[in-house]
Amino acid sequence: MTRRPRRPDVAVIGGGPIGLAIAWRLLRAGCTVTVLDAEEPEAAWRVSAGMLSPAIEADYGQEQLVLLAREALAGYPAFVAMLEAEAATAIGFRRVGSLSVALDRDQLEALRRRFQLLRQALRLDVAWLRGSECREREPLLSPRVAAGIHAPADAQVDPRALVAALREATRRRGGLLRRARVDSLAMAGGRVIGVRSGAETLLAGTVVLAAGAWAGTIASPVELPVRPVKGQILRLRAEALPSMLLQSEQVYVFRRSSGEVVLGATVEEQGFDSTATAGGTFQLLEEGLRMVPAMSEWTLAEAGVGFRPTAPDNAPLIGEIAPGLVVACAHHRNGILLAPTTAEAVVRLVEHGQLPALVAPFTPDRYRSRHDPDRDRSQRLAVPALGRPERH
Amino acid sequence: MTRRPRRPDVAVIGGGPIGLAIAWRLLRAGCTVTVLDAEEPEAAWRVSAGMLSPAIEADYGQEQLVLLAREALAGYPAFVAMLEAEAATAIGFRRVGSLSVALDRDQLEALRRRFQLLRQALRLDVAWLRGSECREREPLLSPRVAAGIHAPADAQVDPRALVAALREATRRRGGLLRRARVDSLAMAGGRVIGVRSGAETLLAGTVVLAAGAWAGTIASPVELPVRPVKGQILRLRAEALPSMLLQSEQVYVFRRSSGEVVLGATVEEQGFDSTATAGGTFQLLEEGLRMVPAMSEWTLAEAGVGFRPTAPDNAPLIGEIAPGLVVACAHHRNGILLAPTTAEAVVRLVEHGQLPALVAPFTPDRYRSRHDPDRDRSQRLAVPALGRPERH
Repeated sequence: MTRRPRRPDVAVIGGGPIGLAIAWRLLRAGCTVTVLDAEEPEAAWRVSAGMLSPAIEADYGQEQLVLLAREALAGYPAFVAMLEAEAATAIGFRRVGSLSVALDRDQLEALRRRFQLLRQALRLDVAWLRGSECREREPLLSPRVAAGIHAPADAQVDPRALVAALREATRRRGGLLRRARVDSLAMAGGRVIGVRSGAETLLAGTVVLAAGAWAGTIASPVELPVRPVKGQILRLRAEALPSMLLQSEQVYVFRRSSGEVVLGATVEEQGFDSTATAGGTFQLLEEGLRMVPAMSEWTLAEAGVGFRPTAPDNAPLIGEIAPGLVVACAHHRNGILLAPTTAEAVVRLVEHGQLPALVAPFTPDRYRSRHDPDRDRSQRLAVPALGRPERH
Repeated sequence: MTRRPRRPDVAVIGGGPIGLAIAWRLLRAGCTVTVLDAEEPEAAWRVSAGMLSPAIEADYGQEQLVLLAREALAGYPAFVAMLEAEAATAIGFRRVGSLSVALDRDQLEALRRRFQLLRQALRLDVAWLRGSECREREPLLSPRVAAGIHAPADAQVDPRALVAALREATRRRGGLLRRARVDSLAMAGGRVIGVRSGAETLLAGTVVLAAGAWAGTIASPVELPVRPVKGQILRLRAEALPSMLLQSEQVYVFRRSSGEVVLGATVEEQGFDSTATAGGTFQLLEEGLRMVPAMSEWTLAEAGVGFRPTAPDNAPLIGEIAPGLVVACAHHRNGILLAPTTAEAVVRLVEHGQLPALVAPFTPDRYRSRHDPDRDRSQRLAVPALGRPERH
């Protein structure tokens, strides 16, 4: 039975994987929820490869994020089972493994350092493969591949199927999904009390801001350090499909469950410029062909553009940032992987007023005083305590 | 008033620019004509840049073809005026000029040789420009451009508008346009008497084979030395448009009258493989970006594939090849430029039994005995005399 309250407990801004996972988990916890989605064509999840790979983006300085991502991967099968059961649809979870390769001597050095970090510092389940071993596992790889890091537990999911399933599960739990572009937050007495879209205001006990790359465009009492990082991808059709996720320093090649192959992705600071450019395509193909020479004969079907929601340190922003306002955004390249974990954390925050320990390093108040001489501005990012949402 | 004879004087196989120009000119000369077009999506004209440039493809050994092309360009304005008046529509004829540039020392040497040929041997109206002069005329060109050949008289036309106008003019003259894929020629007493498409036969006084790259796929008493040469192009959108046709050794960049920019074209021996490949796109972009660096920011809209109809010497095949059968194909990269000239020649042949002197070198009988040890096969290419078509 669908409940459609005039004033939901929670209004979620953003109907991508993060916003929907939060909405669904809040509904399961007994809240009433309305999701407002602007249906941006360049939302990051629409071009995401759906890689669940804690290793693949790891770097020094991001150890806490890798640990969070490792736990997120460990918990994914349970999330998938629960979601697929509730939505009665499959989301294409497959444990395909990933292989990060070095194509030249420079990349080899960087790969060795990354292996040290992953294996020795973070104890991830990864193996070092020689070039010939890489090609044994994936014959599409170029003879120039010098070595690789194999992460057998890495998995993939179909982001479009994931979002469709989350929408269905949200609806089945009585959540309301609305197409609306939120312009600003409604305030009263220093507290966020709802959202505004055009002439309309929706009041809510708590507002969750999960608007991805657009999180910073919504007029709000706090300024969010979130920007869009443009990524271009190419969709290809191949006769011989890669059996796992292949990645070099610059690109990845990935097979979707639909059979389509994706070559991604550029990393561009271009604001909200949604152009699929000749230069972006060239850059992807140049490195893609170096890694997988047979790609030369593959059909180039389409180019796509997405905006990754990104904070200055490439890590997510999860937590309360003003009374009545919880933020869950800036997942950069890890939105699909971190969606279930983020949703759990937000439910915990809304229900108990605190975040799980693994998520605590990612509250927005890490931008509060560090490197910020402007005290006024930094105070605007203060994080007060949050109680349970008001019920109406 | 439309006349729709059961047995037209002429059946034209192929509704591209060559077939339609022939049909229209034959209708003007008083013949009844039916055009049968398979509407191939990869017909060469669909991806053609519509360059009218006798100089741009000139090479040693192709002097006769360049002279024919020069005459074709000289006669184009009269053809355009007549066609636009009859069809009451414009076909985008613009005298934009072309600039062939050298991007490195090797290309510079080749360009110098070509300039000698064009200027001194063929007396074409071309000028040698230094690199800085090239960039003055076209600021989009890279600083690496070392020199260029400027052909101010070169023009362009919109191939789609041309075909639309020819279809309209053909209809207005009472020609019948039919969508049909011709499988074979109907024969009687050693003479071609019509065409077969599926279970249907259309009898005609004369059959004109203008089926482009598919000319060799139609079962016929003669074997035509025509093959498809695959060309891939990219459609781009740019803010600053090139003011003229730009060409290096490998690619050309061209602005359509619609404002779309085309980067073309690969030259591939792949049979009828219509795949737009990653490798083709990469090859075009690599050289395109070398010539016009600003292209990097242009929008890559779409890839296209066309099949150039090509004889072993890259020159057209125009003439009678069996009693009742006239061929007009193998125009390779010059179909748009040579369409009016070819049509005039075919009308002359059908009316007077002979070809204009400039076209005479391009009859199919140049393949009759030369380099052909197989006498049986060469005799199948014999060219008997052709009288006026029978009227029914």
